Amino acid sequence: MERVRVSANVFLPMPVVLVGTRLDGRANFMPAGWCCRANLVPPMLCCGIHRAHATTVGIRENGAFSVNVPSSEQMVATDYCGLVSGATTDKSGVFEVAYGELGTAPMIADCLISMECRVVEIVSLPSHDLVIGEIVGAYADPSVVRNGLIEMAAVDPLLLTMPDNTYWGLGEERGKAWAAGRSLMVE
Amino acid sequence: MERVRVSANVFLPMPVVLVGTRLDGRANFMPAGWCCRANLVPPMLCCGIHRAHATTVGIRENGAFSVNVPSSEQMVATDYCGLVSGATTDKSGVFEVAYGELGTAPMIADCLISMECRVVEIVSLPSHDLVIGEIVGAYADPSVVRNGLIEMAAVDPLLLTMPDNTYWGLGEERGKAWAAGRSLMVE
Repeated sequence: MERVRVSANVFLPMPVVLVGTRLDGRANFMPAGWCCRANLVPPMLCCGIHRAHATTVGIRENGAFSVNVPSSEQMVATDYCGLVSGATTDKSGVFEVAYGELGTAPMIADCLISMECRVVEIVSLPSHDLVIGEIVGAYADPSVVRNGLIEMAAVDPLLLTMPDNTYWGLGEERGKAWAAGRSLMVE
Repeated sequence: MERVRVSANVFLPMPVVLVGTRLDGRANFMPAGWCCRANLVPPMLCCGIHRAHATTVGIRENGAFSVNVPSSEQMVATDYCGLVSGATTDKSGVFEVAYGELGTAPMIADCLISMECRVVEIVSLPSHDLVIGEIVGAYADPSVVRNGLIEMAAVDPLLLTMPDNTYWGLGEERGKAWAAGRSLMVE
């Protein structure tokens, strides 16, 4: 295969989440595309957030944040939260707000899945804070829970590709993980 | 909306990548579902990898690793790499291997996109290493490059949901980011 060198600024296709924080005493939400699990037990995730965002102030002040998974139906409101800054615009009324056990991590009651997280560590990278949080509570709409487990496809989550800045739905099922490759195993 | 408390062990739908390392002098690859960008300038990404994986040994020994984006067509070989450990199985022949400027980060020449990364920092979490790497080189097949930029949809990447352990393709386009929400902005 022929390959060419391209800009190192490559973006993976990522799930879109809304990060919730308390800012000046009210709830604030920003969409984030750089969020993934970081540890299995206890469950932790990490989010890369540009320090220019007011969200990083809220996370540092409260030591807590939430991660909410919007469905495709919530694309417009989700995108809006990325167009205006919590430093100048009150976004607390965009979604219905709910609090869990932490009390300082506003979650979005309208989202099918929300997680409240306690900050474990913040790694200061040149432009971004890599915020590592322990998921201390998770909440879901019963319609996306089957036998106690979350069925992510039922959430109809948004994926984001860059630099074409496009939102996508989850596509067709392609196979099963830890199973599809068995045909290559030597008996 | 009614919501119920669920296990905090929630997984976001994630892109599937293959992490390449040198292990005992040969190339080794493992699929990873916990990988995302961490910093914009310079470009960095992070991967959460269980310390039980031989890959973490290779990353620590070489201070380098690669991140390769398989297409759906490569699902079986990708999944196979997650079923057998590099500690006991030589996986260096599963894909064609290529090296870039680092020399110690084996990339997959068969993948449409590869990145070679220099380790910036490894955050030791309870079960996982959160490996932060600077992307020092990126390589792509010309078929997925348009005007110098990567068109991720053309890669036909795999997404992974857990705990149902299912691979998905990227679905339908839903809208444009930093644009779809403009209708909610006050003039």
